[in-house]
Amino acid sequence: VTLPVTFDDVVAAAQRIEAVVSRTPVLRSSFLDREIGAEIFFKCENLQKVGAFKARGAANAVLSLSPSRAAAGVVTHSSGNHGQAVAYAATIRSIPAWVVMPHDANAVKVAAVAGYGATIVRCDRSRRQAEAERIVADTGATLIHPYDDRNVIAGQGTAALELLTDVADLDILVAPVGGGGLLSGTAITAAEMAPRAEVIGAEPAAADDAYRSLTGGVRLPAVEYPQTLADGLLTGLGEITFAILRRLGASVITVGEEQIVDAAITFLTRMKIVVEPSAATVLAAMRTEPGRFKGKRVGVIVSGGNTDLSWLPE
Amino acid sequence: VTLPVTFDDVVAAAQRIEAVVSRTPVLRSSFLDREIGAEIFFKCENLQKVGAFKARGAANAVLSLSPSRAAAGVVTHSSGNHGQAVAYAATIRSIPAWVVMPHDANAVKVAAVAGYGATIVRCDRSRRQAEAERIVADTGATLIHPYDDRNVIAGQGTAALELLTDVADLDILVAPVGGGGLLSGTAITAAEMAPRAEVIGAEPAAADDAYRSLTGGVRLPAVEYPQTLADGLLTGLGEITFAILRRLGASVITVGEEQIVDAAITFLTRMKIVVEPSAATVLAAMRTEPGRFKGKRVGVIVSGGNTDLSWLPE
Repeated sequence: VTLPVTFDDVVAAAQRIEAVVSRTPVLRSSFLDREIGAEIFFKCENLQKVGAFKARGAANAVLSLSPSRAAAGVVTHSSGNHGQAVAYAATIRSIPAWVVMPHDANAVKVAAVAGYGATIVRCDRSRRQAEAERIVADTGATLIHPYDDRNVIAGQGTAALELLTDVADLDILVAPVGGGGLLSGTAITAAEMAPRAEVIGAEPAAADDAYRSLTGGVRLPAVEYPQTLADGLLTGLGEITFAILRRLGASVITVGEEQIVDAAITFLTRMKIVVEPSAATVLAAMRTEPGRFKGKRVGVIVSGGNTDLSWLPE
Repeated sequence: VTLPVTFDDVVAAAQRIEAVVSRTPVLRSSFLDREIGAEIFFKCENLQKVGAFKARGAANAVLSLSPSRAAAGVVTHSSGNHGQAVAYAATIRSIPAWVVMPHDANAVKVAAVAGYGATIVRCDRSRRQAEAERIVADTGATLIHPYDDRNVIAGQGTAALELLTDVADLDILVAPVGGGGLLSGTAITAAEMAPRAEVIGAEPAAADDAYRSLTGGVRLPAVEYPQTLADGLLTGLGEITFAILRRLGASVITVGEEQIVDAAITFLTRMKIVVEPSAATVLAAMRTEPGRFKGKRVGVIVSGGNTDLSWLPE
């Protein structure tokens, strides 16, 4: 049975986006190696273009468009990292981009998207999808889904491709899971390059639909109004991402809010890198179930660094 | 005329310390490239062991000791990054280390040094040097000077060695200057690997003795009680470092305190890395005299990331 996205798609994505994304460094921390009792390799996508792995998937999707499709531009209704990533990717091909953002969107995020020259369309939070569809209808632009899109998934898989190229013999790969684009891309890559490695998603306990979906075998909707600092992990798994994760046997560790903040502080003070709460879940997961990591070689995808640091204690 | 430290010393240091320091990544920022109008390559020594380039010099000095000298241990009276670096380097050879720290030393720094298993000797701030000398007399341990030491300078030069290996054709190298260990090591390496490159030190205006020393040609003492956030750059140039910098024609750009904070914030928010105020001076320098950098390929040594972030605005 073939998967909707294959390792060949990931390899093709890597070649397609090579010139427009950063080959991010893999950092170590002897402090955390000692604490967890493992050899941990941190793939730092917080140091990626636009501050998150999302640049990979968006760039692959935009660069995969035919010239005529591309000319009409691209649209997204994500106001987070994917919004910035689509705006960035559009600049690569010098095509128009529309980013639909709610009236109450964070001013820093609005400014970041505007900085890439995208057209920002403001609307009520509940109207975002409808507004994006209206733009597609009016302009012929292509909607780039933040995760349930084959090109986006293949693009996200390139982070693990680089990590597994740089670091051999990993026993476990860990990545945050929200919609599942990063985790499913990681699973596809691992299945080929490190077939014995376990693939684990890190998810806030307050938004644990991926955990429940993969445990129960039925795709569940996102938790409504989740109270979590991990604002990049609020959505539920997509149809495609769920199918991939289920087929490849990925599991999920859920983490508490206090553990997320503690992990983000450890990244800042010990590793000297800025990690957003959604990305800090990976360390929180290792601390939550240390027995699964002890003595192992662990590859961790630090997914992004876009945060206003408001979680920092005095 | 031969210099007190040669490029061969730097190459030997690189081989000596290779296994115990990190090969730190070189990061880019398209935001800062656009702002300065230059191609900037950031050598991230904030991601180095102990959070600063100081690990290089201390490791080289400690690994250069004969077995019998080493067995008696090492001493320093630096309570900053060099103190941590000496404590770390001692662990490599499993030898004793004494770090003299004033009664009013920062608790975080004391804990960090203690974490490496060094013996901490507390005393009044004014008694630090005398106390270190007493330990040397009592124990036969070797004092590792923070900058005016040939092995330390050669070790610090390995950061530029890696940078110039990774990035060809740099027109300018910039590094912070306090005692001058990093800047003189950088100048020695540049003189061999990029002989046409300009070498520029970044120094707080409030502690501008290196600027005045190199401009006037006479080594001046450190500014007394300097009011600057750049707590790693308070000391004056050493005899050896001054001689090297003068011979190799290094210059200095002085920067204001507000510029230092602004630069540290830019590193945090745009590049997602934690940079201590002393290290932020390099970006402040480029912003202070942008005309010297425009159109150039610039290598910048981001010297360290050990900070409590107390300079961060609300």
